[in-house]
Amino acid sequence: MYFVTFIYGGQEDIGAFEKIEAGIVRIGDICSRLGIKAPDDMNELIAMSSDELIEDMRVALRGGRFKTVSKDSVKLCAPVPYPRRNIICLGKNYYEHAKELEGTSIDRGNERPEHPIYFSKIADPAVGDGDDIIYDRSVTDEIDYEVELAVIIGRDGMDIKPEDVEKHIFGYTIANDVSARDLQSSHKQWFRGKSLSTFCPMGPYIAHRSLIKYPVELDLKCSVNGDLRQSSNTRDMIFDIEYIISDISRGMRLRAGDIILTGTPSGVGLGFKPCKYLKPGDIVKCEIEKIGALVNQVVEKK
Amino acid sequence: MYFVTFIYGGQEDIGAFEKIEAGIVRIGDICSRLGIKAPDDMNELIAMSSDELIEDMRVALRGGRFKTVSKDSVKLCAPVPYPRRNIICLGKNYYEHAKELEGTSIDRGNERPEHPIYFSKIADPAVGDGDDIIYDRSVTDEIDYEVELAVIIGRDGMDIKPEDVEKHIFGYTIANDVSARDLQSSHKQWFRGKSLSTFCPMGPYIAHRSLIKYPVELDLKCSVNGDLRQSSNTRDMIFDIEYIISDISRGMRLRAGDIILTGTPSGVGLGFKPCKYLKPGDIVKCEIEKIGALVNQVVEKK
Repeated sequence: MYFVTFIYGGQEDIGAFEKIEAGIVRIGDICSRLGIKAPDDMNELIAMSSDELIEDMRVALRGGRFKTVSKDSVKLCAPVPYPRRNIICLGKNYYEHAKELEGTSIDRGNERPEHPIYFSKIADPAVGDGDDIIYDRSVTDEIDYEVELAVIIGRDGMDIKPEDVEKHIFGYTIANDVSARDLQSSHKQWFRGKSLSTFCPMGPYIAHRSLIKYPVELDLKCSVNGDLRQSSNTRDMIFDIEYIISDISRGMRLRAGDIILTGTPSGVGLGFKPCKYLKPGDIVKCEIEKIGALVNQVVEKK
Repeated sequence: MYFVTFIYGGQEDIGAFEKIEAGIVRIGDICSRLGIKAPDDMNELIAMSSDELIEDMRVALRGGRFKTVSKDSVKLCAPVPYPRRNIICLGKNYYEHAKELEGTSIDRGNERPEHPIYFSKIADPAVGDGDDIIYDRSVTDEIDYEVELAVIIGRDGMDIKPEDVEKHIFGYTIANDVSARDLQSSHKQWFRGKSLSTFCPMGPYIAHRSLIKYPVELDLKCSVNGDLRQSSNTRDMIFDIEYIISDISRGMRLRAGDIILTGTPSGVGLGFKPCKYLKPGDIVKCEIEKIGALVNQVVEKK
């Protein structure tokens, strides 16, 4: 089952589907059929999502005869437009990407990190498929793309054991960890250069954990104006999902609704000589197998 | 006027006072006198806090004849126990502190930063005065203290002009930016080493902006078991509050309720040779003029 946040008739709503061609069913309608209180938004749905509830929803959805809305009649939002906390991100988590950063303005040695590099990113809101990435020349001149698999935590947990990681996952979506390379470099810590407004496109949907074979091995790629720049598979992560979630939860409680961006493969603009940064008008397409495509255009701030 | 979050009779509540000796008045009682809906928690109070409302509250409070609860009868919480987003922190923002870090495990050159170093910290929850800082040896062996002036944003804003900064501030409190130095060093980016559970004591109260002369020049100090370790004045910041808030809001929207830790002066445990890290049983007292004292004990995890 897939989950989606959308605007229909001027109202933000959440929905589910098995095949998008068959249309989106409102979560409110499914909950009403199941005789339970409907969640207000995706954060609430995630917080209440036991395995039993998801299974009940799937059965209800298959039972069918729901009113549906077609994808073309809605405005897609990021699946979690207002994440409860900052997004947790990983830096240099694909070997070839760590290598391409060597000697660049944001590199500080250690080609292959011995420990995960974690930082955070504000997505307030995260923008969705079809939304603009705003290019504000008064703030940055070096905007870069990074396709990443986003893991959405479904259950609170501290000191999560590696073997328990899968059940703490709600699902997966696509993120573009848009980055201002000049700010990353000048401010040393990456938080600021990662947190500009519109710099966290996510979507189009959440693929529930039950749809994705675990350990996760998904092809991911990114193209700019049709030119393929990044292409890899999540199995090439240096630190895999099991390691990341068990590691970062040591001494720190993960919360249902937390989103972890698992790092980007090689091929970012910064890795080319000369650098291939984004320009106003560019169309960035991030794709991950079994999840879909996330497309955003770069638009200059007026 | 000061604002406080506390637990009384098993219930979390928020209150205000002018002198703590006269007792705390429930915000609910003040709002009921003013004929307005009471906020549920400090985040809501901050979001609704226009200058007019604060002035009305002050006048009502002075009018008096409210039922009060004494400080000794309540359990103090952090003023904002659950900040809406991660705490925004500054690294190396006092010259003498930048200098003492030179050559240590978390230093990466640039003794005096040319641009503010921003990172984020999870406080979920922030702990309050009198709460424990948990020492978990399975996660870290190098826990350090950092007294900091915390600025609480009162009004949303992007691209805030320096001359408008003061009116975007709700008030000030004390924070101890507890840090796991080994994790800061091994993970490169500081987010993880700053975000362990209980690592963000704050409080005891928020001093409303109207109480503190602007630009802010407040003495701050930190002692461990009575031994004075840090002592400085906020005027010694490399980047002052006006610069920080106008700078970080360029291209990124600050939100009412955001909390900015403005950096720590010299004297942290890492700066001594040998390092003077915290040990179980240590009592850390952070003090800032006109705000008060924040006292926390380090307790080993069972």
